[in-house]
Amino acid sequence: MFVTIIEPRFSETDILGHINNTAFPVWFETARQDIFKLVHPNLSSSDWPMIIAHIQVDFILQTAYGDKVTIKSSISKIGKKSFDVIHEAYQNQLLVAKGNAVLVWYNYAQQSSSLIPEEIRKLLKQHQL
Amino acid sequence: MFVTIIEPRFSETDILGHINNTAFPVWFETARQDIFKLVHPNLSSSDWPMIIAHIQVDFILQTAYGDKVTIKSSISKIGKKSFDVIHEAYQNQLLVAKGNAVLVWYNYAQQSSSLIPEEIRKLLKQHQL
Amino acid sequence: MFVTIIEPRFSETDILGHINNTAFPVWFETARQDIFKLVHPNLSSSDWPMIIAHIQVDFILQTAYGDKVTIKSSISKIGKKSFDVIHEAYQNQLLVAKGNAVLVWYNYAQQSSSLIPEEIRKLLKQHQL
Amino acid sequence: MFVTIIEPRFSETDILGHINNTAFPVWFETARQDIFKLVHPNLSSSDWPMIIAHIQVDFILQTAYGDKVTIKSSISKIGKKSFDVIHEAYQNQLLVAKGNAVLVWYNYAQQSSSLIPEEIRKLLKQHQL
Repeated sequence: MFVTIIEPRFSETDILGHINNTAFPVWFETARQDIFKLVHPNLSSSDWPMIIAHIQVDFILQTAYGDKVTIKSSISKIGKKSFDVIHEAYQNQLLVAKGNAVLVWYNYAQQSSSLIPEEIRKLLKQHQL
Repeated sequence: MFVTIIEPRFSETDILGHINNTAFPVWFETARQDIFKLVHPNLSSSDWPMIIAHIQVDFILQTAYGDKVTIKSSISKIGKKSFDVIHEAYQNQLLVAKGNAVLVWYNYAQQSSSLIPEEIRKLLKQHQL
Repeated sequence: MFVTIIEPRFSETDILGHINNTAFPVWFETARQDIFKLVHPNLSSSDWPMIIAHIQVDFILQTAYGDKVTIKSSISKIGKKSFDVIHEAYQNQLLVAKGNAVLVWYNYAQQSSSLIPEEIRKLLKQHQL
Repeated sequence: MFVTIIEPRFSETDILGHINNTAFPVWFETARQDIFKLVHPNLSSSDWPMIIAHIQVDFILQTAYGDKVTIKSSISKIGKKSFDVIHEAYQNQLLVAKGNAVLVWYNYAQQSSSLIPEEIRKLLKQHQL
């Protein structure tokens, strides 16, 4: 499991007085940086090996400005060409949102998906729930 | 069906050369403004009657900077206390992403959900797919 | 003068009930798209010819969600290697913010600034205030 | 001096391969949270005592994704009704951007600026450059 601490930004609040829902996909992508580093340590964009196919977020409690948010991320499913990352966001020990993302192993030069290499599969399995 | 035209912003591109996935929840929320105006015409935050419970996006094709994106939005399901909005995003006549949002009828002063009023239900039905 | 119409996004509001200040640099960059197209019509990132050196915004009135914002942009100063763009943002005919950006003519492959070509200078002059 | 560590977000990169300029006003506002807490410890929006009048950023070096950015913030000028905050952003020990913001002491209920109270002035002076 990967843990990412997010300090909600003032610009992420909205007129309703809470954190706007669109902050969560940004936070969850930020939380996936640990996974990016795991499978692509140099983070170079020239041979970035993934493309995103799906994101979703369930909003459980309103999130406030002023208190840190802890995001716990894990690998859930590992398919032939894609894998799923699940995220849970906590503020003051309460689950405020959860979600997931589907990442496809992808070659941008060829614009095509490909099998997840065996060594990457092993790395992902170490962080599978 | 509601149609919203989005001009992708330079700041919404990312290092991979396309529009970053996190732009879509923002665009879809922007597309829901027509629905906000339908059910809450003055857009006043003091009695804003909805809270968001769920969002999701499927990414189908990469979206480019420089060409407009057309978002088509409709009401799909209407429940007792919530309704679903579905979105399709097109660029150059191609479906690049689709998604949905679940909006709960909500009283922020009481911090509780409530039944969708009958007159609102009628308005929503007029735009149901 | 270039005119860009912006529909403020719900996610651009903040907890104080108005549009957050950080939306304006995004809007002004969006307004510069007309200038990007003027000097670099294909908008290709591989030979993008500018880099930004400075931005500033003066906030004059609070900007509300729900009403369109009109941004008027012009070229002000044209130097040897850089030019200035000035922006004014109006909501309901009132000036709500103004600002400027300094763009340097730049070669990303060589990571160095260069003289603005004469044909570009002519194009910029046509839109100079 | 206040120090804020920012992990650049993937969504803050742009098509040119670096961090987009519009991330900096967001980061600098995030860095001002320490100053918000200093002068308004409960961070409550109902009696938020400041409004922003000006921001500016000078971009000195391109900022990369993958390395943390350290933002150093101080109070510079303290006027009767406003004060200036200056920010410097460093990545890998190099100054990549600097900027400032002007904050006006403000009563949102009355929609008018007011004198900075003496006790706030004292607090600000302790962090003046």
